[in-house]
Amino acid sequence: MTEKIGIGIVGWGNLGRGVKAAVDQNPDMALISVFTRRDPDLAGAGESQVKFLHIEQAQGLTDQIDVMILCGGSATDLPGQGPYFARLFNTVDSYDTHAKIPEYFAALDDAARAGGNTAAISIGWDPGLFSLNRMVAEAVLPQGNEYTFWGYGISQGHSDAVRRVPGVKNGVQYTIPLDGAMEKVRSGENPTLTAREKHQRDCYIVAEEGADKEKIAEDIKNMPDYFAEYHTRVYFVTEDELAKDHASMPHGGFVIRSGRTGKAGENNHIVEFSLKLDSNPEFTSSVLVAYARAVHRLNREGQIGAKTIFDIPPGYLSARNPENLRKELL
Amino acid sequence: MTEKIGIGIVGWGNLGRGVKAAVDQNPDMALISVFTRRDPDLAGAGESQVKFLHIEQAQGLTDQIDVMILCGGSATDLPGQGPYFARLFNTVDSYDTHAKIPEYFAALDDAARAGGNTAAISIGWDPGLFSLNRMVAEAVLPQGNEYTFWGYGISQGHSDAVRRVPGVKNGVQYTIPLDGAMEKVRSGENPTLTAREKHQRDCYIVAEEGADKEKIAEDIKNMPDYFAEYHTRVYFVTEDELAKDHASMPHGGFVIRSGRTGKAGENNHIVEFSLKLDSNPEFTSSVLVAYARAVHRLNREGQIGAKTIFDIPPGYLSARNPENLRKELL
Repeated sequence: MTEKIGIGIVGWGNLGRGVKAAVDQNPDMALISVFTRRDPDLAGAGESQVKFLHIEQAQGLTDQIDVMILCGGSATDLPGQGPYFARLFNTVDSYDTHAKIPEYFAALDDAARAGGNTAAISIGWDPGLFSLNRMVAEAVLPQGNEYTFWGYGISQGHSDAVRRVPGVKNGVQYTIPLDGAMEKVRSGENPTLTAREKHQRDCYIVAEEGADKEKIAEDIKNMPDYFAEYHTRVYFVTEDELAKDHASMPHGGFVIRSGRTGKAGENNHIVEFSLKLDSNPEFTSSVLVAYARAVHRLNREGQIGAKTIFDIPPGYLSARNPENLRKELL
Repeated sequence: MTEKIGIGIVGWGNLGRGVKAAVDQNPDMALISVFTRRDPDLAGAGESQVKFLHIEQAQGLTDQIDVMILCGGSATDLPGQGPYFARLFNTVDSYDTHAKIPEYFAALDDAARAGGNTAAISIGWDPGLFSLNRMVAEAVLPQGNEYTFWGYGISQGHSDAVRRVPGVKNGVQYTIPLDGAMEKVRSGENPTLTAREKHQRDCYIVAEEGADKEKIAEDIKNMPDYFAEYHTRVYFVTEDELAKDHASMPHGGFVIRSGRTGKAGENNHIVEFSLKLDSNPEFTSSVLVAYARAVHRLNREGQIGAKTIFDIPPGYLSARNPENLRKELL
């Protein structure tokens, strides 16, 4: 196949921009168009290399776009956009509302099958590469424990939560995995760890003028589910400091499985996968783009319907052919 | 399916024993028989739970054994056993003679197709899980560098090499990854590293009576390909010390990819996979057993022929069904 894989992007936020940058790194792919709900001319101002179209024009490009990468959010965008686009195109998305994955999978499976398409859902790093590593390590070491640590990095969900606190003008939250807990896990002692023992949470907050900072800090630290179970630290900064020191979006984490083998379980093994990412959205986008290649191939083979990272042969992600993979990477 | 997956083992060395222990950890599998070239009664002495048969009796058990796990070595056992068994059974093996993988793949593909079977080759951790992680990380971050470090652990190939040196009665070799080099890689500076900068080699040698120890040490340190390119240390020990302190078979290693994303490659990402294994053969066996489950499923779906770790959907390794995987592990 010498023709390039035609890629469409739905949504022009951090993720959509990351997909554009990732497609540029893959010579077997070409970006056809970005689709937006806004005025395409406004959304695309300053991006002369990219064609912007309104989201309703997408249905006219089914002959040019091999895979549509859905870059919207899980809360409000994907529940509608996922099934709509999966009926028209092969799709990849990063749906991450964990509790609703079975329902979302069913909706995309129906839509994709109706259109003869292939839809990879919940692709990225968690869910995504972390899920893959959790699953493989469990299959290899069934007698063991799995530990996921997140960070060092900005958690979008927790940052949203602090910004909803009265008196908070702006803010971000860093999730920090605790070295002591990780070392315990790596030593093979299979510890039971509380939330507080695994992670610390640091918040950098811009307060509204005249707001009671002590009360803000208390409100954050006592927020159930998000902060109450953790050692949380709250720092107040100016809007300028926030923009200067906290604009990048680092993230990462660790998936560690500790498991035993042997006649009497006498040998311990540690399987560890970790990510240290300068830019969470750009890395997530890079995973989406690799899975776009896989989705395209699966669809050409007639493997239609919804797929997760568990269903897709890893070799389908690579620009290399199977002979080359066996020769060079096995 | 409530019936258990029937497993056969060819070869009763460390790997075969590890497969037996791993099968015992997986309630959906049952060990049918171990096949040996030796006298089955002698090979199986003391193993009352296991049925031992001569390797030539295997062909009579095609109706009971769903997957045959080949536990022989790559140099002399697998080139003959692989095609022979792949014609009769689904198989999994840990073939690791890198330069001959394309040829071995072709031979097993022919044999497996002729028998309507599925044959997973080069399964384990390197080749195996390390290959998988190298491949996935490269597909996600095409602009980057890959680094593999091995150890801390005993290298079979290098231990064999020291035992061939005149005057050496017995000995083992530990491969030690160097922290400084790993830290450079993890910092994102994408260093160029020599063999000497990445690994150190420590040898524990039992000399024959009257042998010239200085000459042995020099012969080892100057051995091309194996030791000359490394900082090598040679320690002399007694046969008792070797048996007492160096009988376990730890191993492990690190696959690290450092890659850049963004419009101008301004963001760096580190993807790291590592293993710390108390018992190299038992962990390898555990990987073989998980892939035996996958091979059984692929064959039931009609996916015959030779497969590598790149071809197999990860979900096929798990005892969980796809719905449960999506709900619990995604």
